[in-house]
Amino acid sequence: MLGLPMAEQNFTSAELYDAWPVLSLTERVEGFELLQRDDADDFFRQLSARDRAELIVALPPGEQRLWLRLLAPDDAADVIQEAPAAQRDHLLSLLDDFTQREVKGLLDYAEDEAGGLMNTRYSRLRVDMTVDEAISYLKRDARAREKTVYYVYVVDAEERLLGVVSFRDLIVAPGDKRVGDVMRTEVISARDDLDQEALSKLFMRHHLLMMPIVDSAGRIKGVVSVNDIVDVVQEEATEDMQKLGAVETLDEPYLQISLARMIKKRAGWLAALFLGEMLTATAMGRFEAEITRAVVLALFVPLIISSGGNSGSQATTLVIRAMALGEVRLRDWWRVIRREVVTGLGLGLILAVLGLVRILLWQWWFDAYGEHYFLVASTVALSLIGVVLWGAVAGSILPFVLRGCGFDPASASAPFVATLVDVTGLVIYFTIAAVVLRGTLL
Amino acid sequence: MLGLPMAEQNFTSAELYDAWPVLSLTERVEGFELLQRDDADDFFRQLSARDRAELIVALPPGEQRLWLRLLAPDDAADVIQEAPAAQRDHLLSLLDDFTQREVKGLLDYAEDEAGGLMNTRYSRLRVDMTVDEAISYLKRDARAREKTVYYVYVVDAEERLLGVVSFRDLIVAPGDKRVGDVMRTEVISARDDLDQEALSKLFMRHHLLMMPIVDSAGRIKGVVSVNDIVDVVQEEATEDMQKLGAVETLDEPYLQISLARMIKKRAGWLAALFLGEMLTATAMGRFEAEITRAVVLALFVPLIISSGGNSGSQATTLVIRAMALGEVRLRDWWRVIRREVVTGLGLGLILAVLGLVRILLWQWWFDAYGEHYFLVASTVALSLIGVVLWGAVAGSILPFVLRGCGFDPASASAPFVATLVDVTGLVIYFTIAAVVLRGTLL
Repeated sequence: MLGLPMAEQNFTSAELYDAWPVLSLTERVEGFELLQRDDADDFFRQLSARDRAELIVALPPGEQRLWLRLLAPDDAADVIQEAPAAQRDHLLSLLDDFTQREVKGLLDYAEDEAGGLMNTRYSRLRVDMTVDEAISYLKRDARAREKTVYYVYVVDAEERLLGVVSFRDLIVAPGDKRVGDVMRTEVISARDDLDQEALSKLFMRHHLLMMPIVDSAGRIKGVVSVNDIVDVVQEEATEDMQKLGAVETLDEPYLQISLARMIKKRAGWLAALFLGEMLTATAMGRFEAEITRAVVLALFVPLIISSGGNSGSQATTLVIRAMALGEVRLRDWWRVIRREVVTGLGLGLILAVLGLVRILLWQWWFDAYGEHYFLVASTVALSLIGVVLWGAVAGSILPFVLRGCGFDPASASAPFVATLVDVTGLVIYFTIAAVVLRGTLL
Repeated sequence: MLGLPMAEQNFTSAELYDAWPVLSLTERVEGFELLQRDDADDFFRQLSARDRAELIVALPPGEQRLWLRLLAPDDAADVIQEAPAAQRDHLLSLLDDFTQREVKGLLDYAEDEAGGLMNTRYSRLRVDMTVDEAISYLKRDARAREKTVYYVYVVDAEERLLGVVSFRDLIVAPGDKRVGDVMRTEVISARDDLDQEALSKLFMRHHLLMMPIVDSAGRIKGVVSVNDIVDVVQEEATEDMQKLGAVETLDEPYLQISLARMIKKRAGWLAALFLGEMLTATAMGRFEAEITRAVVLALFVPLIISSGGNSGSQATTLVIRAMALGEVRLRDWWRVIRREVVTGLGLGLILAVLGLVRILLWQWWFDAYGEHYFLVASTVALSLIGVVLWGAVAGSILPFVLRGCGFDPASASAPFVATLVDVTGLVIYFTIAAVVLRGTLL
């Protein structure tokens, strides 16, 4: 780039990248074919696996081979995984035999485990080479030329990992030293079946750039780069956020998912919440007599239950995110509840005062709530304390219950907590009303 | 690690790391002092800037110097930024003069811009050196020994960036080639005042490992590593999620923030939502006469408004996340609305059918809703369609309105949308009721 803005240098490629999300498949293919070979190369590397798969499938067969062979085995595996099932064997057959075997090995791993993220092209050295020998070996090793190689792994005859040297270590070391003296032996490695979220935590905790992936016998199978981890972190955050908003994980960009699938991803939770929320109608029905006698009570129902729901949303959001970041663990449940009891009481008191002032003001200005206005105001204020407190406690404890039962804590979506709190909130409100207003309004 | 589980090799350090969040400051200092020097080193590197600052301030002065000097200038700057204001000058004075100047330069940048993330220790080469000369220069250059250096930047006499070579490029290139022939000249660089979220998008789009940071004259000032970007991505996701849950960004771990600050971070939004939600009491008051005549209408209020709120939560969550990922841009607003109209109608129809069935069943089994049950059921079903549709549209459009007005779209928290939808949902419901039930119940 060097001073020139990107738009001047990569004019077409940057423009195409910008327009990509709104283009139809035919337009995408046309735009892509119009790019200079160099630009097309850069452009292709910037696309997601999904977009690459869609594009490759739509290209003429000769070009399919060209673009697929451009990719490292792990990227090729991702593309094949994203392609329609009927196309996968055809795409695999476009690769050379050696790469085909590598890609098939990678396709056996689940997408979200370490083995599914790793690159199988890494450079290896023997422990008894000198630094100079290592350097001249690496000059000849084609794998060392791959863009994604920053570290060289030192292995024994059974491919078991002994240590690691970076290219930098080799450059700054005296040429006659042994690799074994230069290498670092405290290598953080991960098993090939480790979940990608746990893998990303290891990367972040140890500020790693690359991590070797080993099988159960300690043999190195590939390397994962921190670039893949950035994507994992982004993807996991998206999943958690969507669950928190009571949407099934989309797994596709918002503008690209079909409307039928979009409705399906949202209808499940929405219907489940609706069925849960029906209990509010049942709960309200139980108090129909009270409402008939004191319609004024009905006016504050949305205010009270939504305050509980909001307090619950806050608590569940905070706890779910803290769990995802590893700040809160299962065994911290009691500390969390204690914090939420105090916080919930504090927040409830604040809203109670606001509610009290609101009702008293409306009474003075508009005579809105009749002769028993002070009892009504007290009922509302006390209910707010109870409901906000209950929201905070229920919202914070639900992720623990879900995780304890082996579910994903992020399923304790904010709307789920709100629904739970709505139903109990009604019971709290009408019970307090029954006590406070007995003998006057009720 | 190499086969041995971490717990056996780093026994005390791993245990201390695990227990860290629940330890008091005194216990932390004690635990840290008990570690072997080697372990303590590793352990210190794993701590967050906040934890490092807290620990350093609590250590005796001699040790403060030792640990602070262990850090790269950018990490030292982070620690000083996290330390109490009264301690900052003292901590700065512990550094050597050269580092002190570097750290002061870094402290001038905002925490969330590229300059605040960059490391000022990078290696430079001249364009006319041979590869062999470059390698022997780097063997003598202390900066090349730093763990975080993977690339060497080629600059002219004014420190303007000409190109980049990796240590790998140097190793695999013939020794008599010029650096100018080996270097890549298409360097993606960023300005020092670029926002960290935009910076992380550049990293992800181009799969970068490091990026040089330049000033307005194109002079290189430092480098940002992708490791810092992982933290940025995680941090930005946390902020967005907390805003979505209607909490002000905590900026501190859940279990470590004081309860007073926790209440403050949550009370603002909760009170604002409460004031907004008071409009529901006003809206319900407008329909008090209708409720008095047909108490049955009140029973379905929570069911209907919460369904609108849930639909709105889903839409706002999806749109906010898609905006953060760059999948949806401001100019896509019309496409988003069209999608949400269709989706909202589909979801509304599904809930309407569920609601209709529920009311009819309860009527047949319990005779719950009197002679006009079918009109009541129709009112509820029609209202559900209207409210769910309105929720989807309002929830999706609000982030656009906020961004268009220059605010953070993530402030369109799910509870905010729910509140908005509650008030209008009531109006929709009672208006439909007035039309459908005129002459019968009303």
